[in-house]
Amino acid sequence: MTLVHRPVLPSVSPGYLHKLIPEELPEKAEDWKCIMKDIERVIMPGMTHWQSPNFHAFYPAPTSYPSIIGEMISAAFGTVGFSWICSPACTELEVIMMDWLGRFLGLPETFLRSSGGTGGGVIQGAASEAILIAVLTAREQKVQKLMRKYPELTESEIRGKLVAYSSDQSNSAIEKAGILAAVPMRLIPADKDNQLTGQLLQSAIDEDLLNGKFPVICIATFGTTGTCSFDKVHEIGPICNENDIWLHIDAAYAGAALCCPEYRPLMTGIEWANSFNFNLHKWMMVNFDCCAMWFKNSHAVIDAFTVNRIYLDHKHQGASDRAPDYRHWTINLGRRFRSIKVWIVLRTLGAEKLRAHIRGQTGLAEMFENMVRSDERFEIVCKRTLGLVCFRLKGECSLTKTLLDQITARKQLFMIHATFDDKLMIRFVICGHNPNEKDMLFAWNEVKTQADILFSVKEVTENLNNKCAISTQDFVDKQRQFSSCVGDIQQKLEKVK
Amino acid sequence: MTLVHRPVLPSVSPGYLHKLIPEELPEKAEDWKCIMKDIERVIMPGMTHWQSPNFHAFYPAPTSYPSIIGEMISAAFGTVGFSWICSPACTELEVIMMDWLGRFLGLPETFLRSSGGTGGGVIQGAASEAILIAVLTAREQKVQKLMRKYPELTESEIRGKLVAYSSDQSNSAIEKAGILAAVPMRLIPADKDNQLTGQLLQSAIDEDLLNGKFPVICIATFGTTGTCSFDKVHEIGPICNENDIWLHIDAAYAGAALCCPEYRPLMTGIEWANSFNFNLHKWMMVNFDCCAMWFKNSHAVIDAFTVNRIYLDHKHQGASDRAPDYRHWTINLGRRFRSIKVWIVLRTLGAEKLRAHIRGQTGLAEMFENMVRSDERFEIVCKRTLGLVCFRLKGECSLTKTLLDQITARKQLFMIHATFDDKLMIRFVICGHNPNEKDMLFAWNEVKTQADILFSVKEVTENLNNKCAISTQDFVDKQRQFSSCVGDIQQKLEKVK
Repeated sequence: MTLVHRPVLPSVSPGYLHKLIPEELPEKAEDWKCIMKDIERVIMPGMTHWQSPNFHAFYPAPTSYPSIIGEMISAAFGTVGFSWICSPACTELEVIMMDWLGRFLGLPETFLRSSGGTGGGVIQGAASEAILIAVLTAREQKVQKLMRKYPELTESEIRGKLVAYSSDQSNSAIEKAGILAAVPMRLIPADKDNQLTGQLLQSAIDEDLLNGKFPVICIATFGTTGTCSFDKVHEIGPICNENDIWLHIDAAYAGAALCCPEYRPLMTGIEWANSFNFNLHKWMMVNFDCCAMWFKNSHAVIDAFTVNRIYLDHKHQGASDRAPDYRHWTINLGRRFRSIKVWIVLRTLGAEKLRAHIRGQTGLAEMFENMVRSDERFEIVCKRTLGLVCFRLKGECSLTKTLLDQITARKQLFMIHATFDDKLMIRFVICGHNPNEKDMLFAWNEVKTQADILFSVKEVTENLNNKCAISTQDFVDKQRQFSSCVGDIQQKLEKVK
Repeated sequence: MTLVHRPVLPSVSPGYLHKLIPEELPEKAEDWKCIMKDIERVIMPGMTHWQSPNFHAFYPAPTSYPSIIGEMISAAFGTVGFSWICSPACTELEVIMMDWLGRFLGLPETFLRSSGGTGGGVIQGAASEAILIAVLTAREQKVQKLMRKYPELTESEIRGKLVAYSSDQSNSAIEKAGILAAVPMRLIPADKDNQLTGQLLQSAIDEDLLNGKFPVICIATFGTTGTCSFDKVHEIGPICNENDIWLHIDAAYAGAALCCPEYRPLMTGIEWANSFNFNLHKWMMVNFDCCAMWFKNSHAVIDAFTVNRIYLDHKHQGASDRAPDYRHWTINLGRRFRSIKVWIVLRTLGAEKLRAHIRGQTGLAEMFENMVRSDERFEIVCKRTLGLVCFRLKGECSLTKTLLDQITARKQLFMIHATFDDKLMIRFVICGHNPNEKDMLFAWNEVKTQADILFSVKEVTENLNNKCAISTQDFVDKQRQFSSCVGDIQQKLEKVK
């Protein structure tokens, strides 16, 4: 059965798999055919299909054939590239790929290794990791500076006064990074457009400075998870700069769109960043995990993270900026040969197709948005940006909630809710492997017919509640109308399938 | 060319790849054949072959055909399993695989999910990550306890007094975890057998308690990187328990050997651990990355790491211990479907073959050890354990250093050095894909003949230095002897190939 014909959501209950798999691993080797059959029998029923064109939740995590091949080759090499000598190709290809990507996105030259300065990129596992690394780097750099500046303070006094900033619209990974780094993360309430502005940040800093705090880092977002809003980095950047605050930009989803010049105005001010991350596994056809991260001053992370041992020594260490020991840029000592899948994907598709991919998916989102707008029961909640449409049923939030529950229960579409301006809304994101216009029609038809059912049921229920005020004949008529309406809908759905 | 015929180490200099790859990604899609050719042309010359049977550095990171297939299937699904609803199969298979593995290693029942208690396992990227997570969990739990116990102290005063322990033989990842978690990591000098003992730990704790410090965690090692030594956990455990110190055991390499009952005595005291990790990607045929980690009380990590957002809500959350939201157990929000490669490997091989793999590689190490012992110029530095042989040339360290440099320069074997008892030594580890006895003969022949050359050259050099005391005829004779010796060696090597 092809993916598009499988329900996007599974029909299993928690614990389903425990009944299907033995309690211990087999003593004897099993036949491959038997294992392969089991994938269909026990795994497939429990899959949420992220590659289905009917997956519209969270943000995309597409895979692609060249990426799968790249992953396979990487697994076959089985290289663990923590230093240059562990596999020169693994390290050097990563340096070059990060420069390719930096140029492709139009990042400032100072982020690139080839600029000859201290800039450079590295592949991290996910945005969460990149953000935590930025926080830890900024923290260690700041503590060192403050210890020199305030010799009368102890290190723990200094650490106890640190503070970090982000907006309340930023990803949960940012709040978590604050917890893990033991640096309180102030989640500043964003403005009415869900953006962190210079003024909001300045007020928070002023208040903290008055209270003797030491601001360390601000994490701005290009493309928030809730509504794909963009913090005003051109306002935030100069403020961070004046106050010696590290500026990290998390562009996990939206960053890929920088490859299309027309979307770059969304992300002005990027040149103020000290570090920047975007996920190739979100919108650049490389399968999870593959998060690109750049530093303007890579020496800062190396200084913060470096630990050496004799068995890690090698002849060429520190020999060249083109051959960094990437273990000093990351949490893990070991690292996979992920740059080879990046290389294979970028070459197999080429810049043209990658831009077409971003533009095509943005176009599909616009198509879906227009269908929502054409139905007066619905409203678009906030300005659509890139591949995310935020919509709701007009009126009480409970209506939208019921609609989403109803759709989710049918397992034909997977969308999730979020809030904007205290209103519950549905997030519809273009995801999956190669979605097309037909998939948008299918999605809209599902949303619309479920709304039809919802309103019919609502009307009947209201009539039932008011049954003193309704004649038996009227009620029977309504019931007939409702049944016929449900029948129509089911027929329509069958046709679409 | 098959792997065994390729030099294990590459012949490139830092920066080699920059000359072979264009500066920007191609605008147009490229043909697959052309990319595949480039892998041979530009990547292969820069590879250190971790899968070569002549790779004996660090610790193994083997891949296997079932694991490659598993990685490919995981890439094709493209699932990002941060919560149960993101793919029930992804979460539940991980729960079951961790129980399979726990039982296979003979871990105490309290670590298993199926025990019905708070125990449970999770797949992390690498040991570094697992260790950092243990430190962060222990830190947050301790800070909470101390804040209740000492309401007169501020949070930062408490954080400033924390201290953690490990031995100076532990992996660099442990020192790094201390830096990243901002908890000073005391690296206690190990005893003469490179082991951390109860007494050594107790002295460090006593000293710190006297100075008003708060001990948080002790990280013990089963199988250190340098010499594969085992900390005395049966002594350390009760001390940690008395002092309410979290005990984490890093068994990155050696842990896999627990599947063979005869190796379990090496790791007594494991029941004292609060958390434990070993790398399937080191010695259990699953390709990197795949680090298994267990908690006795998984609620501790969930309490320390939990951050929620409305868009992460789902109907079944917290519904069942069999369906955990693994995002609360890890640094990254997103996670790959790694359990499917574990499942495929464990079933394709079965318990029997996995045990045979550990025993077979230990046997090969013993074979190599015996060859070293048969040559009186060499000495075995410390007791061989599992697949690691530590040896050196008797006498000055410079001899061993020169021998290793000479061997490395020839690129036929890759070994690294370490120190024990202030002596420089060579670590020879059984690694690579399916090494056999012939590979041991090849390795020993290379080591032996390079030692022959080293000693001949040494003799000639000494004679040259003393040329006043040597007649011209003597010198010519020596030179002839030396040339013929080198010729013999080259012939022998050719035969082995």
